[in-house]
Amino acid sequence: MSSKATNTSPVNPQIDDAGHLRHFLTIEGLSKTQLMKLLDAASVFIGANSERRREQANLLIGHTVVNLFFEDSTRTRTTFEIAAKRLGAAVINLNPSRMSTRKGETVLDTVRTLEAMDTDIFVVRDSASGTAHLIARHVPPHVHIINAGDGRHAHPTQAMLDMYTIRERKGEISNLTFAIVGDILHSRVARSQIAALKILGAREVRVIAPATLLPTEVERLGVKAFTDIDEGLKDVDVVMMLRLQLERMEGQLIPSTQEYFRCYGLNQARLDRAAPDAVVMHPGPMNRGLEIASDVADSERSLILSQVTNGIAVRMAIMAQLVGAQGLQEIGAT
Amino acid sequence: MSSKATNTSPVNPQIDDAGHLRHFLTIEGLSKTQLMKLLDAASVFIGANSERRREQANLLIGHTVVNLFFEDSTRTRTTFEIAAKRLGAAVINLNPSRMSTRKGETVLDTVRTLEAMDTDIFVVRDSASGTAHLIARHVPPHVHIINAGDGRHAHPTQAMLDMYTIRERKGEISNLTFAIVGDILHSRVARSQIAALKILGAREVRVIAPATLLPTEVERLGVKAFTDIDEGLKDVDVVMMLRLQLERMEGQLIPSTQEYFRCYGLNQARLDRAAPDAVVMHPGPMNRGLEIASDVADSERSLILSQVTNGIAVRMAIMAQLVGAQGLQEIGAT
Amino acid sequence: MSSKATNTSPVNPQIDDAGHLRHFLTIEGLSKTQLMKLLDAASVFIGANSERRREQANLLIGHTVVNLFFEDSTRTRTTFEIAAKRLGAAVINLNPSRMSTRKGETVLDTVRTLEAMDTDIFVVRDSASGTAHLIARHVPPHVHIINAGDGRHAHPTQAMLDMYTIRERKGEISNLTFAIVGDILHSRVARSQIAALKILGAREVRVIAPATLLPTEVERLGVKAFTDIDEGLKDVDVVMMLRLQLERMEGQLIPSTQEYFRCYGLNQARLDRAAPDAVVMHPGPMNRGLEIASDVADSERSLILSQVTNGIAVRMAIMAQLVGAQGLQEIGAT
Repeated sequence: MSSKATNTSPVNPQIDDAGHLRHFLTIEGLSKTQLMKLLDAASVFIGANSERRREQANLLIGHTVVNLFFEDSTRTRTTFEIAAKRLGAAVINLNPSRMSTRKGETVLDTVRTLEAMDTDIFVVRDSASGTAHLIARHVPPHVHIINAGDGRHAHPTQAMLDMYTIRERKGEISNLTFAIVGDILHSRVARSQIAALKILGAREVRVIAPATLLPTEVERLGVKAFTDIDEGLKDVDVVMMLRLQLERMEGQLIPSTQEYFRCYGLNQARLDRAAPDAVVMHPGPMNRGLEIASDVADSERSLILSQVTNGIAVRMAIMAQLVGAQGLQEIGAT
Repeated sequence: MSSKATNTSPVNPQIDDAGHLRHFLTIEGLSKTQLMKLLDAASVFIGANSERRREQANLLIGHTVVNLFFEDSTRTRTTFEIAAKRLGAAVINLNPSRMSTRKGETVLDTVRTLEAMDTDIFVVRDSASGTAHLIARHVPPHVHIINAGDGRHAHPTQAMLDMYTIRERKGEISNLTFAIVGDILHSRVARSQIAALKILGAREVRVIAPATLLPTEVERLGVKAFTDIDEGLKDVDVVMMLRLQLERMEGQLIPSTQEYFRCYGLNQARLDRAAPDAVVMHPGPMNRGLEIASDVADSERSLILSQVTNGIAVRMAIMAQLVGAQGLQEIGAT
Repeated sequence: MSSKATNTSPVNPQIDDAGHLRHFLTIEGLSKTQLMKLLDAASVFIGANSERRREQANLLIGHTVVNLFFEDSTRTRTTFEIAAKRLGAAVINLNPSRMSTRKGETVLDTVRTLEAMDTDIFVVRDSASGTAHLIARHVPPHVHIINAGDGRHAHPTQAMLDMYTIRERKGEISNLTFAIVGDILHSRVARSQIAALKILGAREVRVIAPATLLPTEVERLGVKAFTDIDEGLKDVDVVMMLRLQLERMEGQLIPSTQEYFRCYGLNQARLDRAAPDAVVMHPGPMNRGLEIASDVADSERSLILSQVTNGIAVRMAIMAQLVGAQGLQEIGAT
């Protein structure tokens, strides 16, 4: 599905002719230099004091960010809303499925209408793969698209905040072994994480899931697949848990949630098989006692709340870079 | 219905004793000079560069705009929300039908409560004619009302953005012949368009609709009525389509939507009957293939996206003028 | 219920070790000096001209206020939203019951996630007593909690705006006799009003209700209880009506709404039993003709709209004080 969307645009649609990032649609196709530049820019927005925050709140004044969530997600929408408002942007939240379907407009009519309002950034989320790419192919130069998750395809800002968090805690990514655990098959988060880890040169990337939740030929992504979590976690430095989407399961792909936790839930005993200083990540919101035990989620090893903090900074950096915000260099971002 | 609301207030309630625009409720009763002044003010907000947008985002700082939508309309609400936020205003979106009905307050209790919060502008939309006028008669001097559509009565900001768009593309309105096509009977848009076109001295205004969708004695508005679209479109300079409100139809006033498109839908062949450089407008959202063919909507003749762009600018100009925003002259608006 | 929540924290959780207000959870435990300081700070935000409002809109730039309404209340949420936006804060509205319950997070997971986003103020409302306190006990030092109503326990910003309004109209509270009329049993408003009036040294505080709507041993709060409104209103200076929560009644605690109005509704005849210059208050929204007659609500004696105006100012003052907004002294607040 993801490949279908990408194939229709032979050139990477998120890079303009001058090599600048115009949209942020997917990790695939970006260089290590581009990813590192975004991570460096994000660091400016971490731990800002009151004075710094005032300066940052000036960066996007006069700009408009539209949260265009065809698929509802209060949590993800909130992160983009906070990031945009901290930059001083005007923010409009839309759930256009309701708006447009009822009135019989097409998705592109909705998008054209919004871009005609001289808006600057669309943050797009949809349950269908390829929607952000589709929109990006049709918008005029003044509009920038950020993919906030499309179907099973990509969730690139999640992957970037994960990379930021790992680098912050562990330093160089190239020295580390990673394990992504959970529903790999349906996960846009896993796809974007794998792409980012490969570009940043991770030593080894493993995926761990029951066979029913592994994509066919998953090794083609450059990862090692495990169906036994105890084996897969051995000596890894970073354990990246995925959220189990209960609404997608319903007894078809996993026998029961209790059985899932017994076989694939991350508990302390399993974490002990990883490297001594291994850390645990989760994109949230967690199903405690399903994919992750509460004591692990709340332990010293957990980077889960750092991920949330860094998620705001990474999104601020991406928004500011896309529109080429004036004053970005003055506050220390390149 | 509209006349009932207006008659109860013998003096035009939107003009204060000094002749200044205090509310923006209806086109009727305004002078050509007043309309032209608003259109001129709106031009300042078109095509602003980044520096200009920053200046504009300073105009309404410290002011509060309340979108008071008794009748839901995400699209119209969004245009006012973007306009107000671009001016730096605090914006509150309310759907007070839910709020007040459940708790047993009257509409005027809701309004009095909101004005007691020292809010500055209420953008009012309701399915009943006269609601914006009713509220305007009861608010204290610091509150300004903008009618965002009331029943079948008026939608004056829509008419103003239409006038702006026509002037931008065609120049003088007095040289032009207009045709408004669709459900004239139920359309507040048509009523406000007719009023504006008459005030601005349009050469000729025609309305085209099946007899069931024409008001009785429509000619009293100063227009020529046609039930045959091919006849009505002959040599017109501007075709103003209306949206067919499917929810109001349900087989009572039109035989079927297919039949409607066959008899009154604007296609290329029909448009060829108009003047060679005729343009097409639509207030959106469109029912493609019902009142307008897709190729016409997307053609060079279509001004539909310009209407959207100009709608933001016109609403910014009206809000800034009503509150007498400081700095308005400095940025070039009179 | 309220005592249970308070007892679990032996020290007043809203005051930090240096004696500063860190959260605003309840009136209980605050000193007269602390209440008076807040009232004085609020006066700065009343009747601000356009220039002053611009200065105020600068106070919380770079700060984020989250309206965390587990219990829905458009009206109360709007007052906090307007107050925060007038101070220049970024505002996020959340109804986390939907967000978190569906996805299986606990309330504290939701709160930890939001605080990890470097937000500054949570305005918390819940139908359960103690929720704001619970959250306050778990947040890091940079987060400030305002209780916007918790169960039957407390609604301290309502009490503060009432105190402001009384002082504005009547001067010294210590010279006055008060009557609170209505459903005392279920009312967090009454609890907070009584606490504030006692701290500020009111001469006498009465509560008036049918026996079924009076808490047992209500006199322990330092008030005189009356079941006969005509007796209770005799010579009082301030009549503070409560809203009858119809959804909580349903014929169990009162025989019927008509019967309630006949026995306990405030009409002009009853108000005549109070002091000659007695004033009437109501937290809104009113049930006209149920707990209060329309002519009384709209009379010169009514302070109801002043309460609304002052409610914005009081909430602005509390927010600005909690975060120690820079520039607060410059604009005249201490």
